[in-house]
Amino acid sequence: MQDDHHHHHHHNPAPQFRDLPAVPTDGSPLLIDVWRGNLIESRHAVHGAVVDSHGGVAAAWGDFEAPIYGRSAIKPLLALLLVESGAADRYQLTDREIALSCASHSGEPGHVDAVKAWLGKGGMTVGDLECGPQAPSHEPALRAMYEAHEGATRERNNCSGKHAGFLTAAKHLGFPTKGYVQIEHPLQQRLLGILEQMSGFSLAGVPRGVDGCGIPTLAFPIGHHAFAMAQLADPHHLPDARAAACRRIAHAMTTEPWYVAGTNRYCTKVMEVTGAKAAIKTGAEGVYMGALPQHGLGICLKVADGAGRAAEVAMGAVLRHLGVIDEADEAKLQAVLEPAVRNWAGIVTGRIAPGTEARF
Amino acid sequence: MQDDHHHHHHHNPAPQFRDLPAVPTDGSPLLIDVWRGNLIESRHAVHGAVVDSHGGVAAAWGDFEAPIYGRSAIKPLLALLLVESGAADRYQLTDREIALSCASHSGEPGHVDAVKAWLGKGGMTVGDLECGPQAPSHEPALRAMYEAHEGATRERNNCSGKHAGFLTAAKHLGFPTKGYVQIEHPLQQRLLGILEQMSGFSLAGVPRGVDGCGIPTLAFPIGHHAFAMAQLADPHHLPDARAAACRRIAHAMTTEPWYVAGTNRYCTKVMEVTGAKAAIKTGAEGVYMGALPQHGLGICLKVADGAGRAAEVAMGAVLRHLGVIDEADEAKLQAVLEPAVRNWAGIVTGRIAPGTEARF
Repeated sequence: MQDDHHHHHHHNPAPQFRDLPAVPTDGSPLLIDVWRGNLIESRHAVHGAVVDSHGGVAAAWGDFEAPIYGRSAIKPLLALLLVESGAADRYQLTDREIALSCASHSGEPGHVDAVKAWLGKGGMTVGDLECGPQAPSHEPALRAMYEAHEGATRERNNCSGKHAGFLTAAKHLGFPTKGYVQIEHPLQQRLLGILEQMSGFSLAGVPRGVDGCGIPTLAFPIGHHAFAMAQLADPHHLPDARAAACRRIAHAMTTEPWYVAGTNRYCTKVMEVTGAKAAIKTGAEGVYMGALPQHGLGICLKVADGAGRAAEVAMGAVLRHLGVIDEADEAKLQAVLEPAVRNWAGIVTGRIAPGTEARF
Repeated sequence: MQDDHHHHHHHNPAPQFRDLPAVPTDGSPLLIDVWRGNLIESRHAVHGAVVDSHGGVAAAWGDFEAPIYGRSAIKPLLALLLVESGAADRYQLTDREIALSCASHSGEPGHVDAVKAWLGKGGMTVGDLECGPQAPSHEPALRAMYEAHEGATRERNNCSGKHAGFLTAAKHLGFPTKGYVQIEHPLQQRLLGILEQMSGFSLAGVPRGVDGCGIPTLAFPIGHHAFAMAQLADPHHLPDARAAACRRIAHAMTTEPWYVAGTNRYCTKVMEVTGAKAAIKTGAEGVYMGALPQHGLGICLKVADGAGRAAEVAMGAVLRHLGVIDEADEAKLQAVLEPAVRNWAGIVTGRIAPGTEARF
């Protein structure tokens, strides 16, 4: 990648960054502080990069060449095959289903019912899903599940939409639907090829792990993850079918943000405000990525210690820095940009905010 | 405190440290790594100190002079007033109730029932508890609560035993029972005096916050928290009533470890194996403390980013380093000393372990 802070390409204006005191411009990590009373109680360091679709690094924090697992934050990239293969059209998938294929949903009834309906439309069942059983993260849904004397199930798994997408693509492409989570399966091999093109990084021999839902997860640099998201945001270099799939995925995520996460979730709340400006996606262990179609930029953030609370606040700081969240948006998003910490009685005891002061 | 790595005092032998490669002896922070496949996915830095009852620093990691909130890890110190005032004897409290007064329990029926019985014995009700309502952290207890169409309550709050202890002490001392969580209340003022003596640190003007359960939490250095735990472990310098209370609290915690935490909890599992050797207590935001009566040492650890998973693994490394967990204990505790990371299907995808390699 070029280290080019002022790169102009043919149809995106040069980004106009807002100078926020808590967003370092000297290459040091972003710091996210957890305040209680008048003391920083805990501190997170965040590594990240903002990259354009030509590979120019528009901004970076910390060690942005460090290899990371993209975890669920790359789901929008993994959904490309579903769309570009024609499977999405063949099964007449709506924006909601495309958004679900990119989702880490909260297991609310609306998510679970939509996944089951989608599987039914494709002649598949929840028994075909190869993700493990999971209970909803949304408390009212969890409560309702227990009150109904039910338990964790595969369709409630936060990744069930991605798995429905995998099954649909496998079926359309004539692959076996069994074993689709294994790296040897042709579906996973195709996905690796897509990831290599999108990221511009060879995945031969990189560190590999198994994700929470059973699929392979491969490690490559933060900056290349950001480049992949930049290409998703601005796919004009890509082959037509892939470019169209990028646009459709970004459109689906930003049009149906509840299906990407759920009630009171950060991805959903931010996309409800930023609209077509930002398709953002959280991942486990403090990963957050975003594609900014109007800016032609991609974002990848990784909290060194894996804390999701810091990834959210860091993403907010970066979106403000880039002007994606403007001052009008800020007022609407204050509760998630610098969230309050509350105790069991609901009293505010502190807040989480980008940091500037010394600690540890 | 004296920086004295080889202090000998009159009845505890000099600690014999085991030289573990992942426990630095150069003053750098302890590192705790989260592995997935063959890559360190996330990393935690831990600051801490091991101090003896004369104030000698036996071991230290990172910035052990940093002020921290002790959070729930100081509950054993806050229980001193209950015991030394004579309230515990007057209400015939058993080791289980003393252990509960030091607990962050999981809200299992055995915990909740014991708190309610204790309150009844003292002529108090759950309505007198000033902690906020909380649901059990133990999944089967949570499930049973919802299946019974019940919700979060004060007696289920993980701190309800501490609050029962506060109420009992306030009643015995003739203080009003209402408002006992406020810093102006005479109970909290007495507790601050106890904390000052135990820690050897003046709390005038230190940073202050409100804890999860509504009581004040005051910040003072890690090393002084460790010293307070050292005095709890080896109270021979303290006035007789306070020394006796220290011994009774350490005895109760190590004799009834299930009442300090709960099923499958780290505090409980470790104390079930180490017995009288270690009274350990977790706190929110990555705090862990321990009193080692047979060694005359106190431990305080603080994960910079607040992650409890790292505090547990760090405490295990320190207890091994100090020889409190010996090789026979290690075999029994392997599952908590270096815990596996599992996905939703139950497959092991990684582990958490003390770190040595470069990352970030």
